[in-house]
Amino acid sequence: MARVPASEPVRRVGRPRVDPTARDGEPREEILDAAAKLFSTVGYARTTTRAVAAASGLRQPSLFHYFPTKEDLLAELLDRTVSPALAFLHWLLEQPARPEVQLYALAWRDTDNLCAGPHNLGALQLLPEARAERFSPFWTKRTKLQRGYRTLVRDCGAVDAELTTELVFGLVESVIVWYRRGGRHGRAAVAHGVARGALRLTTGRSGEFPRQRAAAVALLGSAPGPAVC
Amino acid sequence: MARVPASEPVRRVGRPRVDPTARDGEPREEILDAAAKLFSTVGYARTTTRAVAAASGLRQPSLFHYFPTKEDLLAELLDRTVSPALAFLHWLLEQPARPEVQLYALAWRDTDNLCAGPHNLGALQLLPEARAERFSPFWTKRTKLQRGYRTLVRDCGAVDAELTTELVFGLVESVIVWYRRGGRHGRAAVAHGVARGALRLTTGRSGEFPRQRAAAVALLGSAPGPAVC
Repeated sequence: MARVPASEPVRRVGRPRVDPTARDGEPREEILDAAAKLFSTVGYARTTTRAVAAASGLRQPSLFHYFPTKEDLLAELLDRTVSPALAFLHWLLEQPARPEVQLYALAWRDTDNLCAGPHNLGALQLLPEARAERFSPFWTKRTKLQRGYRTLVRDCGAVDAELTTELVFGLVESVIVWYRRGGRHGRAAVAHGVARGALRLTTGRSGEFPRQRAAAVALLGSAPGPAVC
Repeated sequence: MARVPASEPVRRVGRPRVDPTARDGEPREEILDAAAKLFSTVGYARTTTRAVAAASGLRQPSLFHYFPTKEDLLAELLDRTVSPALAFLHWLLEQPARPEVQLYALAWRDTDNLCAGPHNLGALQLLPEARAERFSPFWTKRTKLQRGYRTLVRDCGAVDAELTTELVFGLVESVIVWYRRGGRHGRAAVAHGVARGALRLTTGRSGEFPRQRAAAVALLGSAPGPAVC
């Protein structure tokens, strides 16, 4: 009978990997990945912390060490739908770029984040449970992000900036609804399509916006954090 | 002590009206309205048919007469997010109007329907439970509606019709996410904003599209069914 070499981690029985891209040795990430999968497939209300623990290959006390409640899991997953774009926005507003370039870059970064990962975290925003006071930090961040869009939409000279901001923000968030539904477009093509759409909605001007796209790609490439395009 | 006139229906105790616009004497509509409210506030998984019956002022056997299962309630509510726009599309494609006018009118009608009613029925599409085989008639209708958009987007001469259709369809469906979140825009303004946005995304042309808007409003006014604008 072959022995497992001491240097190789023994895979525990009953520990299905829910995301093949997740790295070993990061229980927190494995838990979040398991929760994301269960919330998206079984539903939030019908998912127990026991099921999350089982899918992460952990016992419940270990799970509670990282996330004391199911709400804490939801709060972290919700945060990930908005925090990367908000961090990018803060950096972006310090850059000496034209508003159209900034809007293109923000829409691109935000769309790319919503399309990232194997599970549709954006859909969690629509849970009735997400409206509870516990999740107000998430809604505050989302409002700040939307204000960032409004600033850029205004600076681009949109006639009806309030409604246009809703449409642009809505266009970006629409990928929550459609991106994972058997679409035939890659993540980068979707992000560029949405970003170009944001400029068409905002400026009411024609075309493909190649100059704004090129400048935005350069900006995105120089932003701090992991490479995105 | 004043007597209730015999001609006036006596309001039963424990029968809270969930939608003040619903008409008396239509138990089926009252049940659907109660279910819509509970699914949107408590959540689908956590809503029991007992709770739906109680909120409709009915006993469970009466509820089961109209809707034998909770899935039947969801199926009917999902259908209402897509059927009005699909019926309009079938009529629309027979009209001698230009594709841009037809696209404006379809986006208007679809948006208006998604914004109708006090509850966000569109969000039900994102329930994990809605993916079950039981709801395939809904998904088939939704696919037909999207194909209608694609036909019009192509006829408008869009360069990348596949991706543009996703963006236009996504823009319309984005009202599911944002319309009820404290927006300051009336339903008609939102429908016109989305319809204009659909033309901007599709044609890549500038402006407000006043001719298309006027022609679309005339079309919408002559369509069969209840008045919409």
